[in-house]
Amino acid sequence: MTQQLRIAILGASGYTGGELLRLLMPRADVKIIALTAERNAGQKLDAIWPQYSQADLPTLIPLKDLDPKGLDLVFCALPHGTTQAVITALPRDLKIVDLSADFRLSDPELYRQWYGQAHSAPDLQCEAVYGLSEIHRHAISTARLVANPGCYPTAAQLPLIPLLRHGLIATDDIIINAKSGVSGAGRTAQTNILFAEVAEGMQAYGVGQHRHTPEIEAGLSLAAAQPVMVSFTPHLVPINRGMLCTINVRLNAGVKAADIHALWTQSYASEPFVQILPQGSTPSTRHVRGTNLCQMAVFQDRLPQRVILLAVIDNLVKGAAGQALQNMNLMLGCKETAGLELSPLIP
Amino acid sequence: MTQQLRIAILGASGYTGGELLRLLMPRADVKIIALTAERNAGQKLDAIWPQYSQADLPTLIPLKDLDPKGLDLVFCALPHGTTQAVITALPRDLKIVDLSADFRLSDPELYRQWYGQAHSAPDLQCEAVYGLSEIHRHAISTARLVANPGCYPTAAQLPLIPLLRHGLIATDDIIINAKSGVSGAGRTAQTNILFAEVAEGMQAYGVGQHRHTPEIEAGLSLAAAQPVMVSFTPHLVPINRGMLCTINVRLNAGVKAADIHALWTQSYASEPFVQILPQGSTPSTRHVRGTNLCQMAVFQDRLPQRVILLAVIDNLVKGAAGQALQNMNLMLGCKETAGLELSPLIP
Amino acid sequence: MTQQLRIAILGASGYTGGELLRLLMPRADVKIIALTAERNAGQKLDAIWPQYSQADLPTLIPLKDLDPKGLDLVFCALPHGTTQAVITALPRDLKIVDLSADFRLSDPELYRQWYGQAHSAPDLQCEAVYGLSEIHRHAISTARLVANPGCYPTAAQLPLIPLLRHGLIATDDIIINAKSGVSGAGRTAQTNILFAEVAEGMQAYGVGQHRHTPEIEAGLSLAAAQPVMVSFTPHLVPINRGMLCTINVRLNAGVKAADIHALWTQSYASEPFVQILPQGSTPSTRHVRGTNLCQMAVFQDRLPQRVILLAVIDNLVKGAAGQALQNMNLMLGCKETAGLELSPLIP
Amino acid sequence: MTQQLRIAILGASGYTGGELLRLLMPRADVKIIALTAERNAGQKLDAIWPQYSQADLPTLIPLKDLDPKGLDLVFCALPHGTTQAVITALPRDLKIVDLSADFRLSDPELYRQWYGQAHSAPDLQCEAVYGLSEIHRHAISTARLVANPGCYPTAAQLPLIPLLRHGLIATDDIIINAKSGVSGAGRTAQTNILFAEVAEGMQAYGVGQHRHTPEIEAGLSLAAAQPVMVSFTPHLVPINRGMLCTINVRLNAGVKAADIHALWTQSYASEPFVQILPQGSTPSTRHVRGTNLCQMAVFQDRLPQRVILLAVIDNLVKGAAGQALQNMNLMLGCKETAGLELSPLIP
Repeated sequence: MTQQLRIAILGASGYTGGELLRLLMPRADVKIIALTAERNAGQKLDAIWPQYSQADLPTLIPLKDLDPKGLDLVFCALPHGTTQAVITALPRDLKIVDLSADFRLSDPELYRQWYGQAHSAPDLQCEAVYGLSEIHRHAISTARLVANPGCYPTAAQLPLIPLLRHGLIATDDIIINAKSGVSGAGRTAQTNILFAEVAEGMQAYGVGQHRHTPEIEAGLSLAAAQPVMVSFTPHLVPINRGMLCTINVRLNAGVKAADIHALWTQSYASEPFVQILPQGSTPSTRHVRGTNLCQMAVFQDRLPQRVILLAVIDNLVKGAAGQALQNMNLMLGCKETAGLELSPLIP
Repeated sequence: MTQQLRIAILGASGYTGGELLRLLMPRADVKIIALTAERNAGQKLDAIWPQYSQADLPTLIPLKDLDPKGLDLVFCALPHGTTQAVITALPRDLKIVDLSADFRLSDPELYRQWYGQAHSAPDLQCEAVYGLSEIHRHAISTARLVANPGCYPTAAQLPLIPLLRHGLIATDDIIINAKSGVSGAGRTAQTNILFAEVAEGMQAYGVGQHRHTPEIEAGLSLAAAQPVMVSFTPHLVPINRGMLCTINVRLNAGVKAADIHALWTQSYASEPFVQILPQGSTPSTRHVRGTNLCQMAVFQDRLPQRVILLAVIDNLVKGAAGQALQNMNLMLGCKETAGLELSPLIP
Repeated sequence: MTQQLRIAILGASGYTGGELLRLLMPRADVKIIALTAERNAGQKLDAIWPQYSQADLPTLIPLKDLDPKGLDLVFCALPHGTTQAVITALPRDLKIVDLSADFRLSDPELYRQWYGQAHSAPDLQCEAVYGLSEIHRHAISTARLVANPGCYPTAAQLPLIPLLRHGLIATDDIIINAKSGVSGAGRTAQTNILFAEVAEGMQAYGVGQHRHTPEIEAGLSLAAAQPVMVSFTPHLVPINRGMLCTINVRLNAGVKAADIHALWTQSYASEPFVQILPQGSTPSTRHVRGTNLCQMAVFQDRLPQRVILLAVIDNLVKGAAGQALQNMNLMLGCKETAGLELSPLIP
Repeated sequence: MTQQLRIAILGASGYTGGELLRLLMPRADVKIIALTAERNAGQKLDAIWPQYSQADLPTLIPLKDLDPKGLDLVFCALPHGTTQAVITALPRDLKIVDLSADFRLSDPELYRQWYGQAHSAPDLQCEAVYGLSEIHRHAISTARLVANPGCYPTAAQLPLIPLLRHGLIATDDIIINAKSGVSGAGRTAQTNILFAEVAEGMQAYGVGQHRHTPEIEAGLSLAAAQPVMVSFTPHLVPINRGMLCTINVRLNAGVKAADIHALWTQSYASEPFVQILPQGSTPSTRHVRGTNLCQMAVFQDRLPQRVILLAVIDNLVKGAAGQALQNMNLMLGCKETAGLELSPLIP
């Protein structure tokens, strides 16, 4: 066997850290060298993830004990805000996929506006490549630091970017209604995500002010080559995993729903993880659960010159750890689909 | 005690029939005279609804055995389509609240267009009063036949009608994203609503062609005094009960979100079942579960001159049996809130 | 109207506190005078329970600001352990229903053994009457301090006590497999009861060492007039509410399953909240959701001379707030069923 | 590459059929030659399992069109009862793993007793090898027809068989409380497994008469070398997948809980799919979801000389399709774990 890739996961006790483990474990070409956690430092991993009790994995160490020497790549699955300092302290030649929001916005002013304080590592912010794999594949493959996209931005941008690039839809009338499973809210104990607070209910949250909004707009603006603002309303739905974006857009003159289907089909023809459903089919989050897939569909709206776009992903896979692995594959020269050829778990 | 009201429920074995029972049972002034069911005819009610095994309720009879004499009112909770013939056969002076879709569209042509066949009782269609209680209270109180609104139309119209009546929003840019719990799909055995087909997933359905669309549009057109078309996308969410409408609209010139809040507050000031949340609060279906409430909120959208409306109901109560009872109260001269002063079951 | 009963709830922000509110609100003869909460003190109640935003209820105050003068009864829904000191500090003539575990065990030595420290109010421990309403009705009706039973002990004792009193089953072979909904674990933020840690899974917990064990044994020993030990294994199931005890017992010589059914039927003939199902029927937690009912059934086991007992309750109602209200009714001379004549919410 | 194994799945539209597809698809050494379904015959597979729309899989054919020539093995995932005739009609040298209950009982009299009619293929019943892989590995590896165990029997026998073989526990006091996810009830439309009939509730079913009982007893009797009867109570829990057996047993003289832990550890030391948890750990169905694992634990009971055994599996994997694949691997000389080295999907 050739030399194994030497990988560390910073923040291994959250859901994205755990999902990275699930995806990396079957990879014979990968060796997990270090796992960090703060509160749980010193514990064996199976105190946090009992399912890996039989695996040959390192003990959880505090970040300060991490020895980055010889690592090929680090996944950084730490909380937003603290990540900037952590990555600043890592060697400048270490490859990193950062799953936090800290490097997703390249504009320091935009960051300050949405996060209420200045970014502490503006040079890294500038260096970071935005890791929406299908869109920025080339830049990712040569990047040192990749800012892995948020879950909502992934599910929103993949259907919209081709349409904006090719001028099929209006740029001032994009209305995104998004719904997420609860794992997207993380594993930190908070009353509002207790089972008995969430089960058998649904609601919108962060209406008009969710921090994924500027990330979506930045990607769409780039695609449209002009500033794009969106209406974005996220909702919490009582399922573990799954994300659904229902997007209402206005067609430019002469464009039809079939044109969108055709453009998608062509744009994503060689993409292993983007699937365009046959016209009339409706995507379900169940069909992508546990996979790195994004499935999308387009429907003619009843309102003239409008269509409804539907896109589903697994928020922890294509929306987080799966896309991070896809990016690792690109950065380290592995086959892009390695470790990601997964079937959904149904039911 | 004064004379009890004599009530029958046609179609007592489905969820709306069962919910009518739950709401009627505590009413000392109501006596349930007859319950019909076809497949289950002849059975004791507790074979279908064991929770009422101790109650003094009639045995399930087939519709053909119903004796309408002396009844004060009939709830008709039968499947769409078959209801027309049933109601035609009932005495012309019997008061009826019909929970099917058969009499919700007053326009025969519209009915034919959406249901694929001519209405068999156009005179009754003409006679029927649309039972959105808060909007048509006066007509309901003198009606003989009330067409109880659909669940989606209830949750969509209550927030929108005042805005259209007073010209606060554009009539050509109403985008309704709706989510429903599974009980809305009924109690008939179908593979697609099995637990293992629905749990841990979500999806849109009936995109662009759901039959509640013309019902919504009819009500909004009346309010706007001009034809209104809407974009309507329903979604299925794995909860038993609950409905959430997220509605994106464009404000007319000079109108602000606060104006909507003010108009709602004023329009519904004396309504016991419509609650306007304080600005910044987000409604949750859990807070109306088991109740006849509709809670609504308005948020300024990020897109200029647009707002996001949120409305929640319990699809089986305000969306079906609760509003039916509210209408019965109006039709029979009872206190409108009788039997409906309910707290939500949380958690 | 006669004078209203003046009631306070200590610990109004947890699930049992909220459930007391749900049950007390419709009572015209009850006035809620004070609500306490520590972390949330000073807030309006609807910050915690938005469903009561329109109700005329007092602001949350810290316990230290409670003025007990003029109160008819206090519900104490505080955490185990801290309750002893709180109740000690209350006036000695104030009627109290305590929903914590602090006064359920009357034996100081047993308390010390299971709770790891001496009880700080042994005299109150001695004074307290165990509030299993159907069993200790007479003592409750004259008690000052009632220790409201735990949820598991309620569901386990109601089926077993008549059998032990009348010597129908062996006392050394009682095996209780119990399953609870997640609300039983309370509303405090803890990782292990997050939605994403609980949904789509099930497991046993506290095997062989759950603190409800001595409470169950004390009640059964009293009924049997000899020491009884039980095997008790609780499980966590991903539902909001509901509790199911499956109990395997050995029959004494000559006893048959039908004898159990007959004895239950006779013992509970006049009990409004205990329902014996017809032979062959299986109780479901759904049929008691939101109600104060305990439904039970008995099945002949395949093993000779053994039977399987099934009992279901709503852990927050008959297992907590509902029984507490039932006890209040007994203590204050109200009709025992006042506020508790509820139908289950199905589905 | 060497010659691929040629496989057919009879009954590909149910959950076990779908799960076989999920497990077989990644196997480069397997080629799926035929898929049968009756009602859905003629349809492309993705009408039933959209997640395989991109896979190169055959169209669904009716059973009568199956050409068994050249097949290496057939999985038979057909309904109980009809399977006997189907397998009788297949060539006598074709290898078969049957996932129905038809060949699990080798005693014709026992079959007649529990199924109410004579077995129509007693010779095949005699030929069939019971496919509890860890227990009958040798016989399975040379078998032509393997009767794949039921889900409950798998979860019940794996913990019990070593204890009975080595005489650690009493044979007349085995009490099995089992809980299953809803997928175990199949994919046929039935009212009682609708989402809105199952969610937010739990109940026992088939008490004292579930047809898995004689299957469990047959396996345990063989292990004990004497007739064993068990108390078996299954429960339905609202999750998609997962099975938990809580088993109360009496220890023989001188045996302790630690002896069970030691015997299990030794008996299953080389088993890849059986995991004995460290003492004090409690198994959760979430930790085996989507995997072929059986995890088990033992706890000292409070009752003297009794212990509580806990065992969890995924009912569709180790309880059905996964064990079927494990058996295929044994029958065809593949590595036993091929296609089954899976991590659980958490959350």
